[in-house]
Amino acid sequence: MSVITIVGAGMMGSAMSFPASDNEHEVRLVGTHLDREIIEMVKENHIHPKLQRKLPACVQPFHIEELEKALEGTDLVIGGVSSFGVEWFTRNVLPLVPDTVPVLSVTKGLEDQSDGELLPFPYAMKRKLPHGRRLSLNAIGGPCTSYELADRRHSAVVFCGDDSDILMKLKNMLKTSYYHISISTDVPGVECAVAIKNAYALAVSLAIGLVEREDGIGCNQAYNPQAALFAQSIREMSKIIKLVGGKEENIVYGAGDLYVTIFGGRTRKLGTLLGRGLSFDEAMAELEGITLESVAITSCLARALYKREEASLVKTSDFPLLMHVNDIINNHAPVAIPWEKFETDS
Amino acid sequence: MSVITIVGAGMMGSAMSFPASDNEHEVRLVGTHLDREIIEMVKENHIHPKLQRKLPACVQPFHIEELEKALEGTDLVIGGVSSFGVEWFTRNVLPLVPDTVPVLSVTKGLEDQSDGELLPFPYAMKRKLPHGRRLSLNAIGGPCTSYELADRRHSAVVFCGDDSDILMKLKNMLKTSYYHISISTDVPGVECAVAIKNAYALAVSLAIGLVEREDGIGCNQAYNPQAALFAQSIREMSKIIKLVGGKEENIVYGAGDLYVTIFGGRTRKLGTLLGRGLSFDEAMAELEGITLESVAITSCLARALYKREEASLVKTSDFPLLMHVNDIINNHAPVAIPWEKFETDS
Repeated sequence: MSVITIVGAGMMGSAMSFPASDNEHEVRLVGTHLDREIIEMVKENHIHPKLQRKLPACVQPFHIEELEKALEGTDLVIGGVSSFGVEWFTRNVLPLVPDTVPVLSVTKGLEDQSDGELLPFPYAMKRKLPHGRRLSLNAIGGPCTSYELADRRHSAVVFCGDDSDILMKLKNMLKTSYYHISISTDVPGVECAVAIKNAYALAVSLAIGLVEREDGIGCNQAYNPQAALFAQSIREMSKIIKLVGGKEENIVYGAGDLYVTIFGGRTRKLGTLLGRGLSFDEAMAELEGITLESVAITSCLARALYKREEASLVKTSDFPLLMHVNDIINNHAPVAIPWEKFETDS
Repeated sequence: MSVITIVGAGMMGSAMSFPASDNEHEVRLVGTHLDREIIEMVKENHIHPKLQRKLPACVQPFHIEELEKALEGTDLVIGGVSSFGVEWFTRNVLPLVPDTVPVLSVTKGLEDQSDGELLPFPYAMKRKLPHGRRLSLNAIGGPCTSYELADRRHSAVVFCGDDSDILMKLKNMLKTSYYHISISTDVPGVECAVAIKNAYALAVSLAIGLVEREDGIGCNQAYNPQAALFAQSIREMSKIIKLVGGKEENIVYGAGDLYVTIFGGRTRKLGTLLGRGLSFDEAMAELEGITLESVAITSCLARALYKREEASLVKTSDFPLLMHVNDIINNHAPVAIPWEKFETDS
């Protein structure tokens, strides 16, 4: 039995308490300053208000002020913040984690640098650590929505990091009969695949709204247009994985993650609204209060690709679907799928 | 304007009359001996009973006895039979097609040879032609269900064949504002990708029934298990494409086709029934009258892989999902997804 401290009590971080407690670890769940109400409710009756599930009985809730206490004697820190909390996590949590304690992060995202480089979060965090620190930063990729993990549905994920021995140790700490863990040292490939799928889930979802615009909401769905955008997504995602130096085979995690995000995630709602004809601002107004990783990652990718194009390293025309989504989000473009640009001759 | 003769009046063959007639070609639709009732009804009121859509007014229906008349002066023959009709098509139709007239087939499938070789249909047909014939045999891949094509939904397909000039000519004959055509000379890669997706659509659909077995039919769907099987499908499909000497990048057509088959196709029904706990025989009894390409291609692939394993060319253990589906179909195995076999260390 080990001690596992989860920092960030959002849906995914909290859902990690299920495989953690099923392995009979001591599980400590620390809310950030944004999670105060969640922690209060967990303290009261163990129900997570966003996840709408009762957390395992052994989960000990902590407010952020109790972080140091929650880290005492811990064997593993799970980073449970969203991509918007990574900066905060790096500054406020990592300094308190001893180098001997590995960190495993659920956060999916990339950080674009001024030269157009795209850094996976574990690498971006590492760059911000004081010189000489040897903290082991690992991350979880693959298709896994939080509420289904909390329901103990079969979920196949991948733990990635630089050291296979540590990855294997993490796997042994968290695997269950329903939580299936691959491991990979291809951090750029895996993290890129699972981060960029958010942009492409938005793209595929446009087709849902486009059909509704033609036929009326609630009518029969059409899958040919979605499938066409899905195929184009896989094509562009594979190119981006190559670009960051990842292994092409790790597109599988992006493909699975794209699939689950189209069907099980919140990004579908935004894409559908845009496809129906709402402007980006109108759609965001309807989604009030929801921070969408898909919007952030699309803008990040587009910025990086434009930078690299300036240096003649890529052609943005090789990514017509992504660029169109970026134009919708950032340049007030109406939805007009550039179908002909997807046609290839190979 | 050209003359296009479609042979095989099933759903997909008949749906091809939409892009053909929208390009203002003369369109002749020839039913096989199995399509007699369909042709009768089209002659009567132009409604296709299976597609449940009215065919374009210019479509001229023919019975199989009128095949020679329907081929007179034709510029393109579209092969519209299912994989179960390929043998018949090769023996009875191809001999009547002049070498100057290209053939474009909607049939997706592979033919396994006695040594475990997997031949795409255009190549398998070619081998059966008399020596010296130079007929151009091409095929259509990519995600495109017949009824959505008939509804003129955006659909992205790929025409593959040996000669890019002919492919470009075919593209120009059939492209429309909704029918988007890529071309590729990678016949093994494209055809393999789009044929084997039927086996994997069956595999992914198992997860739908498995969840229903736990929660009851009609309850909330879970996507983590489907996405896990989707990712494993892409992994195994990529390996099979490599095995037949196809270009790995053409997995995109298989991925899109897999997506549309899970959602828009009949194979979903079989997978769901099996996942719920029905035996293969019970499930097939419920699907009475439906000939399923997914069953045929699974058995074909498994036969070929076992043959190649005997010759130490592959390990069937690299395809745990396919082999499990084959065991369900051919060896009375109950559904028991081998989750742990999907875990990798890379």
